[in-house]
Amino acid sequence: MNIIESYIAGEWCAGGASSFSGGQSQCLINAVNDEVIGEVVSLSNGFDRMLEYGRSRAGYALKQLTVHERAERIKQLARYLLDRKETFYQLSYMTGATKADSWVDIEGGIGTLFSYSGIARRELNDDSFIVEGAVENLSAKGSFVGQHLLTSKDGISLHINAYNFPVWGMLEKIAPSLIAGVPVIVKPATLTCYLTQAVVKAIVDSGILPAGAVQLICGGIGDTLEQLNEQDIVTFTGSAATGHLLRAHQNILASNIPFTMEADSLNCCILAPDVTPEDIEFELFIKEVVNEMIAKAGQKCTAIRRIIVPASLMKVVSQQLAGRLQSVIIGDPLDASVQMGALAGRKQRDSVISAIEKLRTVCCTLVDGVNQFSDFKSVGVLPDKGAFLAPTLLSCQDPLNSVEPHQIEAFGPVSCLMPYEELDDAIRLAKMGKGSLVGSVFSHCHKNITRLVFGVASHHGRLLINNRDCSAESTGHGSPLPALVHGGPGRAGGGEELGGVRAIKHYMQRTAIQGSPDTLMAITNQFVRGAKAKHDAIHPFKKYYEELNVGDSLETHRRTVTETDIVNFGCLSGDHFYAHFDEIAARDSFFEKRVAHGYFVISAAAGLFVEPAKGPVIANYGIDHLRFIEPVAIGDTIQVNLTVKRKTKKTKRPEERYFTGVVVWDVEVLNQQQEIVALYDILTLVERKNRD
Amino acid sequence: MNIIESYIAGEWCAGGASSFSGGQSQCLINAVNDEVIGEVVSLSNGFDRMLEYGRSRAGYALKQLTVHERAERIKQLARYLLDRKETFYQLSYMTGATKADSWVDIEGGIGTLFSYSGIARRELNDDSFIVEGAVENLSAKGSFVGQHLLTSKDGISLHINAYNFPVWGMLEKIAPSLIAGVPVIVKPATLTCYLTQAVVKAIVDSGILPAGAVQLICGGIGDTLEQLNEQDIVTFTGSAATGHLLRAHQNILASNIPFTMEADSLNCCILAPDVTPEDIEFELFIKEVVNEMIAKAGQKCTAIRRIIVPASLMKVVSQQLAGRLQSVIIGDPLDASVQMGALAGRKQRDSVISAIEKLRTVCCTLVDGVNQFSDFKSVGVLPDKGAFLAPTLLSCQDPLNSVEPHQIEAFGPVSCLMPYEELDDAIRLAKMGKGSLVGSVFSHCHKNITRLVFGVASHHGRLLINNRDCSAESTGHGSPLPALVHGGPGRAGGGEELGGVRAIKHYMQRTAIQGSPDTLMAITNQFVRGAKAKHDAIHPFKKYYEELNVGDSLETHRRTVTETDIVNFGCLSGDHFYAHFDEIAARDSFFEKRVAHGYFVISAAAGLFVEPAKGPVIANYGIDHLRFIEPVAIGDTIQVNLTVKRKTKKTKRPEERYFTGVVVWDVEVLNQQQEIVALYDILTLVERKNRD
Repeated sequence: MNIIESYIAGEWCAGGASSFSGGQSQCLINAVNDEVIGEVVSLSNGFDRMLEYGRSRAGYALKQLTVHERAERIKQLARYLLDRKETFYQLSYMTGATKADSWVDIEGGIGTLFSYSGIARRELNDDSFIVEGAVENLSAKGSFVGQHLLTSKDGISLHINAYNFPVWGMLEKIAPSLIAGVPVIVKPATLTCYLTQAVVKAIVDSGILPAGAVQLICGGIGDTLEQLNEQDIVTFTGSAATGHLLRAHQNILASNIPFTMEADSLNCCILAPDVTPEDIEFELFIKEVVNEMIAKAGQKCTAIRRIIVPASLMKVVSQQLAGRLQSVIIGDPLDASVQMGALAGRKQRDSVISAIEKLRTVCCTLVDGVNQFSDFKSVGVLPDKGAFLAPTLLSCQDPLNSVEPHQIEAFGPVSCLMPYEELDDAIRLAKMGKGSLVGSVFSHCHKNITRLVFGVASHHGRLLINNRDCSAESTGHGSPLPALVHGGPGRAGGGEELGGVRAIKHYMQRTAIQGSPDTLMAITNQFVRGAKAKHDAIHPFKKYYEELNVGDSLETHRRTVTETDIVNFGCLSGDHFYAHFDEIAARDSFFEKRVAHGYFVISAAAGLFVEPAKGPVIANYGIDHLRFIEPVAIGDTIQVNLTVKRKTKKTKRPEERYFTGVVVWDVEVLNQQQEIVALYDILTLVERKNRD
Repeated sequence: MNIIESYIAGEWCAGGASSFSGGQSQCLINAVNDEVIGEVVSLSNGFDRMLEYGRSRAGYALKQLTVHERAERIKQLARYLLDRKETFYQLSYMTGATKADSWVDIEGGIGTLFSYSGIARRELNDDSFIVEGAVENLSAKGSFVGQHLLTSKDGISLHINAYNFPVWGMLEKIAPSLIAGVPVIVKPATLTCYLTQAVVKAIVDSGILPAGAVQLICGGIGDTLEQLNEQDIVTFTGSAATGHLLRAHQNILASNIPFTMEADSLNCCILAPDVTPEDIEFELFIKEVVNEMIAKAGQKCTAIRRIIVPASLMKVVSQQLAGRLQSVIIGDPLDASVQMGALAGRKQRDSVISAIEKLRTVCCTLVDGVNQFSDFKSVGVLPDKGAFLAPTLLSCQDPLNSVEPHQIEAFGPVSCLMPYEELDDAIRLAKMGKGSLVGSVFSHCHKNITRLVFGVASHHGRLLINNRDCSAESTGHGSPLPALVHGGPGRAGGGEELGGVRAIKHYMQRTAIQGSPDTLMAITNQFVRGAKAKHDAIHPFKKYYEELNVGDSLETHRRTVTETDIVNFGCLSGDHFYAHFDEIAARDSFFEKRVAHGYFVISAAAGLFVEPAKGPVIANYGIDHLRFIEPVAIGDTIQVNLTVKRKTKKTKRPEERYFTGVVVWDVEVLNQQQEIVALYDILTLVERKNRD
């Protein structure tokens, strides 16, 4: 028997094996043909060693790396896994997933690694911590300031995942955790853990991550929850019932352990009243509903469970959907013509059927023309084998006065049609789900869209508005994306995952740091206004990236701004704005006289601080946060303080000529009264000495 | 008997009164002289009406206002309360608080209202919602994009507060909630609820907020928790034990109701090894510890409970602290010479004494020279009256091997000295608190500071580094500030309050919106690149604020950039950077030839889009997010698209000349190949037509 082992403290092991004594066993079954794939024997101990190994060994190693270095490893890992994807596909078919379903799980998961690697390197500085937000001035004279710092939590993150996305479900959580510097313990749902295990095996074999950065529990988690401490993090994806049990665990409560829950919800799709059957949006809507019902055999936490349509269109929508669902080809995912595979297991199918029966008992009817459970077009399905089920479309005639269709989730290819009369009723229906991961709206009327969005946003983590303008490129109702939050309030679990950098921060501790500007600069390695400037005889533009230090400052020579400058600048730029050229209008304005162009001030500032000769500072490619504080009048004399604010090493791409880093400079333009006239950051590309 | 009534659904009521039937009663006692202040009779019903009234009536009214309008009301309210502060001071003395203690509670609380009003108007747009972060491109051609939107939760926020800050504790939470558009129900600790009630009475009397925006429960909360739903929010400040009970409430768990907990923690103060008794930092440290011990009679969740000092300095620190604590004058807060008042009640004093006794039984000793419980310099203390207690300094000789001093909190004027040998031991000690609201470090050595900060940050919500550079303006170890997060991991409750806009977002739902650029623009009322431009014959600089619409766009005439331009611009600005003037160096650079100055490109762009005549567009006061995408070479022809991106109405200050609004414009500079050469936002002040 193939034993699906766990990976604990650097060893592959199963219950009863090596130093671990035996535990409970569970057989894993191929969802398509009922063949036995393997067996999981739960570990009965060793969880303490696993936690200690992760926290101390992998935690220490990850914290020695910067955010960019961690992100670079994640990218390497993504490439490594992509090269081995075929192995994963072969296992994925056994879960009942089609090629398309598997693509979402496997390549979608690997794509999330790539995305997170990019997000981290693009949006975060190359430090082991994150500096968040502006420096907050907390004092009159500026000697006491504050700033928020995020540092890695000191523990591990335990990810308890659902059976439907054995690969994506793991990778979308480990990417932000590892980039945050926090090692992970993955606990996949037992049903499909053989696929997760295959990916973890590849991760371990790759040697790309520090030892212990990813550990795996197949089977029961023993006393892991009892042993967590306040620096650990738990995330959970799955049913609300299991989620609540975990969240109520006494140690999670007592230690205030962050617990993120992402639960299956009764997501809705709303066809707005402006759409007629002749509109493009009508066809887009029908297609999307069918696709969401059959993709992954409807076993998606984001699937459309409630189809909210104008009462006047109920008939045509029912007919259209029933017609298309009837012709769906169901069967062995290895056959290319198959559109929908099997559910993940027979128990899962039974529970879907029982939910359908329950809904039919109370207030829902089967839509005419929809197939019965085992009556469908099939390919490669063996008699009485596999967890196959026909897509089932229900209809609820009085959804505003029904509770069950907003509450009972059939976690399979099942959805329920609900009519509404007024737009406000559609909003009420959507909200009766008591919190969803996602909702979608089909409409080409901005008035309806805006009313619907603001009507239901409080109950949704994501809202997709689909219409002719975006449908060709829309990623679809059911797809969480790395850049956008995934999660929802209430029934959806109240958690948030993904959303770019937000998810990385979830694994870090935010700390407000207070002290002098010098102290803050020493901690954050970013220039803080008010810190003592460090001057040097060598012009900073003559220094390589490595030679520039945060806080290095240049005080330039001065320049007196003349009427001639204003005239010349206006003529050259073509900017003859009244404030510079119309003495009468300027006198009557808040400037009270003609003043220099703001653009002239920053151009002249560059003239003061730029070193003409070619040197390591290659280019100024941007400006941020520019504010003109005081006008510069004729006769004013300006001077510039240019200070290294922040540095980020860049990885050289093959097509690039230089090894470079980004240096952001703080620019302060002063007048003869030492008043600040302009403040901004300039972004420059600076050559590196070291070729690494 | 003075009955302290609750304010429920628009009525002042107490148990047994009006439509409500009677409940349990509790006597309120003056902490200084044991006189009876009043009585609280818990309500036994009406909580359903209260929730409904808040959610529907006040919730609706608040959501009709924009963020700026809500912030404006908060400012008005702050002014109104400030005018009535004397009433609050008189009640505050009865809680045992001195004038200084009361100032923190009352004026600190009102100051937080002012701060939040400012933060909201400065950092947020004037809409009823918040648009967060950049537009995320989700497609190759840009027709499908995403952005995060925050909208008000659909429920109420229930704030369960502690007895030690009856005013600040309420105001610091209602400010962000109300600005977020979420009505509040305040449940103060019964012990000092008469002061909270007085402030709520003033809030209600002011009529500044919509009816039901603030409701008050004095006494028990009945079945309020059972009746909360997934759109409500609960916050809790107080003891860990009560917090866990609330967090474990079955409805809070089942409905996934956001629960923010801020629990008293064993905060530490670390004297770094670089500080000698002769250093300024030593005296600053001694002063801060004494101050934190006696302020509010030590009844602060942020007070210093663990004083971590180099072993070699234990003796001198003990002597210094003991000496100063001995001379503290304790007594009636109405006497101006009094430095420390009473604890909030006798029961509270008993529990502090019992915690001290427990610590002394295990591993702590009383420091020599420290007064015994009732043996202190006093003024105005009646024999056997009031909840007075001498400041108590303990010492633990082996803190690394002791658990209790890191775990048992004496919530009063009590602190425990702990010696360390190595810096790493100081870090270990700090972390043994298992999560704190705040820690402070006294040091003037950046190396030590950095090691300590990164060593302990994972366990702290706030860290203050105090030394000679900032002490004159430092707000102190114990003071949470509106702009910085207040909260901490683990024992501190795992929650976050304050932190500027962060706290406002806590009361809102984040929703990722996906759709076409046009759709997103219609929803967010902010220009989204890729949305259809709206052109108009009238130049946008000739339009008043009200006449400009998001998406209004100007496509300018063109300009060919010549060698003469580059020469003239270099001579005028003084910027002779090689990329513009040195053909040899430029050819060898990634520019491959001489190119125009970036500053020239944006100046020439202004020349293309600026309307010279004085009009409603008064000034361009800033630039954001400028990126030079492609170089502009000699002979290239540039053109500009200028589009209204975002608008925010400004409230006119008396000293200002115009009624204005801020208009942010999206600027896109293109070359003759329609490639983007520069992208940025410009910020302008535009005159308003309407004088409101």
